[in-house]
Amino acid sequence: MAAGKVDIFDTTLRDGEQVPGCKLNTKEKLELALQLEALGVDIIEAGFPISSPGDFESVEQISKAVKNATVCGLTRAVQKDIEVAAQSLRYAVRPRIHTGIGTSDLHIKSKFNSTREEILQRAIQCVKWARNFTDDVEFYAEDAGRTDNEYLAKVIEAVIKAGASVVNIPDTTGYCLPYQYGEKIAYLVNNVPNIDKAVISCHCHNDLGLATANSIAGVIAGARQIECTINGLGERAGNTSLEEVVMIIKQHKHLGLYTNILTEQLNPLSRKVSDTMRMPVQPNKAIVGSNAFSHSSGIHQDGFLKNAQTYEIITPEEVGADSSKIVLTARSGRSALAYRFQNLGFQFNRNDVDVLYNEFLKVADSKKEVEDADLSSIAKKYQSNVALA
Amino acid sequence: MAAGKVDIFDTTLRDGEQVPGCKLNTKEKLELALQLEALGVDIIEAGFPISSPGDFESVEQISKAVKNATVCGLTRAVQKDIEVAAQSLRYAVRPRIHTGIGTSDLHIKSKFNSTREEILQRAIQCVKWARNFTDDVEFYAEDAGRTDNEYLAKVIEAVIKAGASVVNIPDTTGYCLPYQYGEKIAYLVNNVPNIDKAVISCHCHNDLGLATANSIAGVIAGARQIECTINGLGERAGNTSLEEVVMIIKQHKHLGLYTNILTEQLNPLSRKVSDTMRMPVQPNKAIVGSNAFSHSSGIHQDGFLKNAQTYEIITPEEVGADSSKIVLTARSGRSALAYRFQNLGFQFNRNDVDVLYNEFLKVADSKKEVEDADLSSIAKKYQSNVALA
Repeated sequence: MAAGKVDIFDTTLRDGEQVPGCKLNTKEKLELALQLEALGVDIIEAGFPISSPGDFESVEQISKAVKNATVCGLTRAVQKDIEVAAQSLRYAVRPRIHTGIGTSDLHIKSKFNSTREEILQRAIQCVKWARNFTDDVEFYAEDAGRTDNEYLAKVIEAVIKAGASVVNIPDTTGYCLPYQYGEKIAYLVNNVPNIDKAVISCHCHNDLGLATANSIAGVIAGARQIECTINGLGERAGNTSLEEVVMIIKQHKHLGLYTNILTEQLNPLSRKVSDTMRMPVQPNKAIVGSNAFSHSSGIHQDGFLKNAQTYEIITPEEVGADSSKIVLTARSGRSALAYRFQNLGFQFNRNDVDVLYNEFLKVADSKKEVEDADLSSIAKKYQSNVALA
Repeated sequence: MAAGKVDIFDTTLRDGEQVPGCKLNTKEKLELALQLEALGVDIIEAGFPISSPGDFESVEQISKAVKNATVCGLTRAVQKDIEVAAQSLRYAVRPRIHTGIGTSDLHIKSKFNSTREEILQRAIQCVKWARNFTDDVEFYAEDAGRTDNEYLAKVIEAVIKAGASVVNIPDTTGYCLPYQYGEKIAYLVNNVPNIDKAVISCHCHNDLGLATANSIAGVIAGARQIECTINGLGERAGNTSLEEVVMIIKQHKHLGLYTNILTEQLNPLSRKVSDTMRMPVQPNKAIVGSNAFSHSSGIHQDGFLKNAQTYEIITPEEVGADSSKIVLTARSGRSALAYRFQNLGFQFNRNDVDVLYNEFLKVADSKKEVEDADLSSIAKKYQSNVALA
């Protein structure tokens, strides 16, 4: 692992695909897997092979087709799960088994009716089972976000000793604040003696809208893998958005981190995933929403037209989005109006624009957005009035 | 200001309404303003009165109708803007004028072709103009997120001296990381001598998906007002989501903070805003997305059915959402299947469910979601086979 390289572990096809309405057939999964590989993700979590024969087949097909990225299958801490996952991954160039168990007291008691000691033994056991099939074993400590740090450190030390080379610290319920999640990762860095033998991974859910911030707090504290999905798909309020964490790392160079993602492919792949999985992306979604590069208020438009950087920290080209839009509404100003008239081929001076602006506002107050046709009609009416005068 | 009280400043009707396609007529704005007041927001930013006659009228009508919340109008640092805003607010029980100017070097040079000293004077001047009309003046330092802290502190000190009682520190371009935004607020707390005479406000944009986390970092550092919108609407990738910051503050009691929001109204109002402004909310949106309380993977469903808290940190009732959903897909497990059969009135034992599960998976692998009708058909076929055997 390079010091500043953050591995991008995409789980669109597993955590994203398990969402109501998102299920994909094998052909669709395979197509998306190849596009994720082309995007530059390091690890593709292809599915949960024991869950159904259809998912087993998808993981198997993806294992055959993907050549550069690691292909990963999810399991519970159950021997049969691990055997089936290994079987589905047998053609992969770089197979990874992702196994683990809940470690919070709530999960230990309510889900497993068990004890901390017993869960520790099961954690060690599942890693050993998985190591029979591959050297690349990732362990997840489910609900780590609510797990006591001291116990968590003990589990993590033990699973690394048992052969896990990646340790995943999921905030399963999206509970942590960024500073808390960062402190948890820092605690592991400082208190797990063999932590240098493994990569720490962040897997954050978005129930409070903090998945992205928590993942970034995690890598600042020393984690070097982020589990995420295109468009932030995933259980309930979803997972960390791949596009957000990638662009934060790219924008904030002072962090000294980087990923291998080809960011120009982010918007095209976002649309592809949205269409294939039938999950709309809201217009006000960061990086990939249809309004992410639209400017409509007068103050912003004026600044943007003078220097785009006043209101844009990323260019749309950088993330493969359509060009920035200057949309005309009743909140727009004279600069934007003049700009749009000019684009339509009308040359007006400042006095003209002052008069035209009042005409524009009458139209704008009566509808959502003023279109080119409205502008042409306003301009032509004005020109004929001027000609008559 | 109570020590732990965080004022909720809603700008759905201003920053949200200026988004392409979101424009509202006066009747719609008035209706939403009354619902925002009923929700418990402390300040309603009702519009940008100089922008159009229609918006002026909306602010005027809202000023007449709203009795408990403060009603606020936005202006630039321009005398005419402030006079018009004051005029539109003249019937308000609690009127606030929100004025300000860009303070980053980029804004000073590119937008204003000006200097730091001149901008400082204009900042002081606009607050003085506004104070001629009301005691409640809020100053915004646009692009504060990229403004040099030392200069920002100087501006903030001067505007408080000139009469501003709220100072808004916008991360206009959504640029800051949470720790950076928190440090900026802490810098002002520690370096502005008269800061105790004003409330610090957070206004964060979501271009990198960090608006919510930045606002929370702000209040942890000492800010006591958050500017936000229902569903996170706003310019480009939007603003801070009201529902997210409110629920974070409610969930994380150790912060010692609270708001006056009646959280049971969050989902109904989210739907109302989405419908009225014709802005869809994605299913995987925190708190108010349609999937926010849906469980579809087998591991999660099993845990959830044993104890909801294993996978839910908020109950749907708390935020006025429909009950948690147990959705059946090819990733679901036996516990969820048994639960859904039981709900349909079928009583099966463990062995029955094992057999039925394989039948279920065949159906599930072939479609997105398994419905009640599919389950009834599987169950009846099984019962008649058993009867025949």
